[in-house]
Amino acid sequence: MRIASYTSNDTSFFGAVSDAGMIALSPDFPQWATLRDVIEAGALHDLAVAAQDKPVTHPNGTFDYQIPIPNPEKIICVGVNFPDRNAEYKDGQDAPPNMSLFIRFPRSFTGAGQPLIRPPETSQLDYEGEIAIVIGKCGRRIPQDRAYDHIAAISVCNEGTLRDWVRHAKFNVTQGKNWDNSGAIGPWLVPFTAAAQLDDVRLTTKVNGELRQDDRTSRMLFPIKRQIEYISTFTTLVPGDVIITGTPTGAGARFDPPKFLKPGDVIEVEAEGIGKLVNTVADEFEEGTA
Amino acid sequence: MRIASYTSNDTSFFGAVSDAGMIALSPDFPQWATLRDVIEAGALHDLAVAAQDKPVTHPNGTFDYQIPIPNPEKIICVGVNFPDRNAEYKDGQDAPPNMSLFIRFPRSFTGAGQPLIRPPETSQLDYEGEIAIVIGKCGRRIPQDRAYDHIAAISVCNEGTLRDWVRHAKFNVTQGKNWDNSGAIGPWLVPFTAAAQLDDVRLTTKVNGELRQDDRTSRMLFPIKRQIEYISTFTTLVPGDVIITGTPTGAGARFDPPKFLKPGDVIEVEAEGIGKLVNTVADEFEEGTA
Repeated sequence: MRIASYTSNDTSFFGAVSDAGMIALSPDFPQWATLRDVIEAGALHDLAVAAQDKPVTHPNGTFDYQIPIPNPEKIICVGVNFPDRNAEYKDGQDAPPNMSLFIRFPRSFTGAGQPLIRPPETSQLDYEGEIAIVIGKCGRRIPQDRAYDHIAAISVCNEGTLRDWVRHAKFNVTQGKNWDNSGAIGPWLVPFTAAAQLDDVRLTTKVNGELRQDDRTSRMLFPIKRQIEYISTFTTLVPGDVIITGTPTGAGARFDPPKFLKPGDVIEVEAEGIGKLVNTVADEFEEGTA
Repeated sequence: MRIASYTSNDTSFFGAVSDAGMIALSPDFPQWATLRDVIEAGALHDLAVAAQDKPVTHPNGTFDYQIPIPNPEKIICVGVNFPDRNAEYKDGQDAPPNMSLFIRFPRSFTGAGQPLIRPPETSQLDYEGEIAIVIGKCGRRIPQDRAYDHIAAISVCNEGTLRDWVRHAKFNVTQGKNWDNSGAIGPWLVPFTAAAQLDDVRLTTKVNGELRQDDRTSRMLFPIKRQIEYISTFTTLVPGDVIITGTPTGAGARFDPPKFLKPGDVIEVEAEGIGKLVNTVADEFEEGTA
């Protein structure tokens, strides 16, 4: 079962994904404006039921994916969360006791199939393949043994980063992580119903077919259950909140010389059992119009 | 003219502030759910006109202030933005070439008159007096000479911080800046109509009547116009977005020994011509109930 947000002819929909295209469901559920409302109502499964025996309304080629939750209250990203990632910083510091967290705005992400945008201010657009989880149940100070109860759905993320702008200032990566349409989430949500969907999932990133990142969620320094416990210590997690759970070693910045993304590149982030997120790259202003 | 968001008997309103209380205006403008919508419609002035000759609907003592924009797309905070603040870090580094930016969730702020919440996990709740601006007009790559055209209104902020959690991880201050109800914005919005409202404004913070912070916006390392220019380089600013513009030297953590906030303290952040934001402090769990 795969549920997505998408646009067709400038109208936003949510619906079920089939091999031939989309089965629009939002027209049948006008009480919910977006999948955030569906998740808040605990109704993802109702969508799956409603999609049964319904025909495709938007065949492939007639719609564009949006990010699955277009209007989350918050998107929280976990940094430096796989073995070797801390060592990549070469600052002689041991692995930190707590996870690094930063925040991205929804507008910093685009949907599957859309180009990541390389702005004229920097040539250092980089990929980071990750798994995204979507909170389904409100909670504060959630213990690890109940953390999975608070996840409604999972997805895939390319947490695209403008590498030089990450260190533009004294502290914080905010401005390297929040360029409009510099990353992507999608293509769809898969409802989360069993621990095996997250506990030991292979996560890979390919650029133009070349394998760049390849690791498993079981090797996270801060497992997803711990992420939910830690983050909910200080902030109330609410339905629709997104946590981007960390990227394996192998981003373009770690090569010598670095392998940054350029227009025309194709990046595929794949998480076993969840899906494959494919994006291209485009310059923000085409040649001759900048 | 002062416009505020508030609740009374569990209902949310926006309205005009008078000395005797609130003049509810949201019932007259059902097309706008919150002040974010009012600002997006460019209609702050319409509210002022509508309030003329209307009686107080909620006398003082019958309502609670909310943060002025309860549902902004984003709240962006500027760090280390006054003289001596960089030196406070004692890391031998020169002032950075670009401003440090971090993000806060709306739920990390409470309204004027409400207590800042000290959680049981840390005793290092600290104040930071600041000026908040609210974006009125959408823009990307806004030049400094047009930056003020994009401001709809201004307010006051206590950018309350859990000091030890700011450095809980390797990078980023996220988790020290986002405890639920650890800061405040308000009491109200003042429409921004003249550069003199921001260019050289005195900003002070008092704790239990003792002056702790005292500086002027003219001494900012990164003036507000530059903040708008820099932030809009990477993200589209939209109506209702809030920028928290930086705090002067003198937060509690800078004293030896540090002067952290404790239950019962009264913090007053005042910005000349904008307003005075007063909050108390309370422990999250009262004694005997934790």
